[in-house]
Amino acid sequence: MKSDLQISQETDLEPIIEVASKLDLKEDDLELYGKYKAKINFSGINRSKDNAEGHLILVTSINPTPAGEGKSTITVGLGDALNKINKKSVIALREPSLGPVMGIKGGAAGGGYAQVLPMEDINLHFTGDMHAITTANNALSALLDNHIHQGNELNIDARRVIWKRVVDLNDRELRKVIVGLGGPIQGVPREDGFDITVASEIMAILCLAADLEDLKARLARIVVGYTFDRQPVTAGDLKAEGALALLLKDAIKPNLVQTIYGTPAFVHGGPFANIAHGCNSILATKTALRLADYVVTEAGFGADLGGEKFLDIKVPNLKKAPDAVVIVATIRALKMHGGMKKDELKNENLDALKIGFANLKRHIRNMEQYQLPVIVAINEFVTDTDSELTLLEHLCEDQGILAKRASVWANGAEGGVDLAEAVVRLIDRKEADYKPLYLLEETIQEKTETIVKKIYGGNGVVFSKKAQKQIEEFMKNGWDNLPICMAKTQYSFSDDPSLLGAPEDFTITIREIIPKVGAGFLVALTGDVMTMPGLPKKPAALNMDVTNDGEVFGLF
Amino acid sequence: MKSDLQISQETDLEPIIEVASKLDLKEDDLELYGKYKAKINFSGINRSKDNAEGHLILVTSINPTPAGEGKSTITVGLGDALNKINKKSVIALREPSLGPVMGIKGGAAGGGYAQVLPMEDINLHFTGDMHAITTANNALSALLDNHIHQGNELNIDARRVIWKRVVDLNDRELRKVIVGLGGPIQGVPREDGFDITVASEIMAILCLAADLEDLKARLARIVVGYTFDRQPVTAGDLKAEGALALLLKDAIKPNLVQTIYGTPAFVHGGPFANIAHGCNSILATKTALRLADYVVTEAGFGADLGGEKFLDIKVPNLKKAPDAVVIVATIRALKMHGGMKKDELKNENLDALKIGFANLKRHIRNMEQYQLPVIVAINEFVTDTDSELTLLEHLCEDQGILAKRASVWANGAEGGVDLAEAVVRLIDRKEADYKPLYLLEETIQEKTETIVKKIYGGNGVVFSKKAQKQIEEFMKNGWDNLPICMAKTQYSFSDDPSLLGAPEDFTITIREIIPKVGAGFLVALTGDVMTMPGLPKKPAALNMDVTNDGEVFGLF
Repeated sequence: MKSDLQISQETDLEPIIEVASKLDLKEDDLELYGKYKAKINFSGINRSKDNAEGHLILVTSINPTPAGEGKSTITVGLGDALNKINKKSVIALREPSLGPVMGIKGGAAGGGYAQVLPMEDINLHFTGDMHAITTANNALSALLDNHIHQGNELNIDARRVIWKRVVDLNDRELRKVIVGLGGPIQGVPREDGFDITVASEIMAILCLAADLEDLKARLARIVVGYTFDRQPVTAGDLKAEGALALLLKDAIKPNLVQTIYGTPAFVHGGPFANIAHGCNSILATKTALRLADYVVTEAGFGADLGGEKFLDIKVPNLKKAPDAVVIVATIRALKMHGGMKKDELKNENLDALKIGFANLKRHIRNMEQYQLPVIVAINEFVTDTDSELTLLEHLCEDQGILAKRASVWANGAEGGVDLAEAVVRLIDRKEADYKPLYLLEETIQEKTETIVKKIYGGNGVVFSKKAQKQIEEFMKNGWDNLPICMAKTQYSFSDDPSLLGAPEDFTITIREIIPKVGAGFLVALTGDVMTMPGLPKKPAALNMDVTNDGEVFGLF
Repeated sequence: MKSDLQISQETDLEPIIEVASKLDLKEDDLELYGKYKAKINFSGINRSKDNAEGHLILVTSINPTPAGEGKSTITVGLGDALNKINKKSVIALREPSLGPVMGIKGGAAGGGYAQVLPMEDINLHFTGDMHAITTANNALSALLDNHIHQGNELNIDARRVIWKRVVDLNDRELRKVIVGLGGPIQGVPREDGFDITVASEIMAILCLAADLEDLKARLARIVVGYTFDRQPVTAGDLKAEGALALLLKDAIKPNLVQTIYGTPAFVHGGPFANIAHGCNSILATKTALRLADYVVTEAGFGADLGGEKFLDIKVPNLKKAPDAVVIVATIRALKMHGGMKKDELKNENLDALKIGFANLKRHIRNMEQYQLPVIVAINEFVTDTDSELTLLEHLCEDQGILAKRASVWANGAEGGVDLAEAVVRLIDRKEADYKPLYLLEETIQEKTETIVKKIYGGNGVVFSKKAQKQIEEFMKNGWDNLPICMAKTQYSFSDDPSLLGAPEDFTITIREIIPKVGAGFLVALTGDVMTMPGLPKKPAALNMDVTNDGEVFGLF
């Protein structure tokens, strides 16, 4: 069986200028990064501003399990299949983070014959967006600590700085650190910590900004900490937003690449789906919508986490709701939700599948609450039996939902044609009538409770003493009308990662709320949320190599 | 008076493909980064391998002062002037570091009408080389700390880790830190610190590597720390070199840009000139030599520091010595060396100039020790009087050295024609007969003493107890045959920055020696050497801005 990297390396890529021409983009609309990558420049973005918008397809999934669900793979394969049936389509994906690539994953750009290419570049430095975000994030830290060191005119309480530094690596050693040691000329000692770059608020801001002006305004609103009298201090107070926007002026431009089948793909932005909203950039999605008839995009983690945030945070910023929602499921993952262990999954087990279906069912009902048409994509694995596949189709049918098998990993575009045709028919019925889950003017407590009850299926929310105090404070600061960005485990509807399937009778505890005023949401932390992953005992990096001619090994 | 940024923005750039064609490079030899930047790919580098090499011109200077000496400006202007007199020329410069750009400088790519362009890009993320080096450096840190955390098979003593993390920013707060706090699942607590990226050994390695194979071999030789029984541990022991080389596979390719006059310029690599050797990359300089008849390149700081290292560290790796050495001096800076204060420099003062000439004179004699022909470039300022300029010319003449005025900052290529013609004549005399200052087989003490006595004009060297112990240890490890990379203040021949001119009767104390076995040199630290600058009270960043259309402000 060929690895993703081998398949990628065997593919003859089209020059990106030709890929762009499929979207009526001219060479002058592009900033080339080699032959096969480009950014769309501002003139390219602006030229399309009056175009009618195409149809938006949101790909989301059941709660992820170690068995894998293949959401990106389906997203890519569906885009390829739509083009195969002569629908002008574009894929809009997130950029992978180098941390997980060097750690466990080795790569993340779809899989098999449903990949975005060149996968080596996309998985390594790509067009430098992550680095620009890292630099902007850390420049703000340097300016902040320098301000405190050089006299602290703003009266910032160094113990109440909430802005952390970032690296785009998995580096547990940096989770909790003390900085500024060494005496008075080396800065002000304080506790600090590093997050992974994709957890930076600047990543979320870049992905939600409408343009450079909006980016700058959002950057200025970032809350970096508090004064000794507990007033919020912003990046704007530090006069940092101009320099930060300057550092991000190219990173904000959408990246264009292609799939194995030459389908145009915007791969741009990649905020965490727990501490942030987990979708690719507004600017990429918007530009894609103006250039194509169908745009296939994905949300992070499962529909309870990434899907909910796509619909309640991204959609209002995008000013466009999905015309259809595709929920990706696999027989294997549903069987895990039904109680099977990972190493038994190759065995047929209809009972486990039936039990595990409860997870998918709840996600279906959830998406329907937004008044959006739903379809299930069964991402096929070789170990799936026909009885299992048929059973899952029937279970969905019983819910009034169409389920379509897709074998895009093994068969590429051809393997997604059934799904693509069904999605087009679904959109043609024009049933989408987006309705938000909650209203922004509701209280922080109400909005959080709505998510927990209506999406997670929980009984209610417990706010810690700290969170209650924060809510009062946030009301005074005028932040209470922001949407809620839940930071919860992706593995369960509940805040306990071991509760698979469709758990009931649980409450969710909100430990702390983090204001992301620049991004424009409040992060509600449930339990411990990891914002800096660690490396495993044998990191993927140890198998990576490159020859003298630049041939790459160890990405997969 | 126009700012550098304004001049840059008013210039009509040639497409980089056309600039490349002047060097007989084809489009297939390039990896484009937009229209005006490109990397030369491996096929481009290899295609030129059998070409005869052109002439190499090293631009160095007197000891820098706050008055400014304009070495990069002369380097650029000389390259432009050589092309103007129909000599096929290329400029090979270092890349600026974002830290100083955001801190004090606001930009560093020549000045006035002697600039490399597009200056905004070169001064910000450029082609991502700095970010790739930052990432590779910090990936090694993460792999190292993960190894210790995950069982420490190599028996690494966490107290004796010498590999530091880096950021490409001025951030004093990170100079001394404690990492790994928070309990047993958050890593192993230890003291650590961050350097600025240009101080990373990986930057030095990238600049000295002949190709990707050599890069990987050097990366494997990096010493990251010591075991509990004091044996060195390398990046190769951690099996990290493949991943690091992979992260650097594009960064190692030379960057091609252009000057205001369309002269091709390789701007690639930028190691610190104190903790490292301070020259642009071997691969860029080598490729430039194979593609042009004249290559103008610069060394960091003054001729005592950057010049010496160019000749004793870079030249043996480059396997090519300069055909001529240009020493840049200004009337202003020499008057400071002669005792004048900065705010008096606009006044004519022939006596101060005469006294300050001692600094230039020693640098001239030093460069002649390498048996290389020397010429002085007087970088003109509007405040220079004709008497001062004439006096300096006569003082040089008395030393048997030609001095030529250059006004490239104000007048561009035209302002460098006299200098260019003189340099060509000097090279045509073929007097260069490079002789190294010392032999590698000499002891560490002998090599260091040779530099101090023959270049600095000092009486001798004092090795601290720690340094003496290190020398013994390094001999056991077989590192004593490496060249010495002096880390000394750039402001004085001595290790006291306040001793301007040509101080005598001093000794140099070597406090500590840092093995940079991957780069292939031993850094001898004299006094405190700053490897992480801080920001000033009003950082340049606070004046930076970008409009919604991407227009840039605040770089200068």
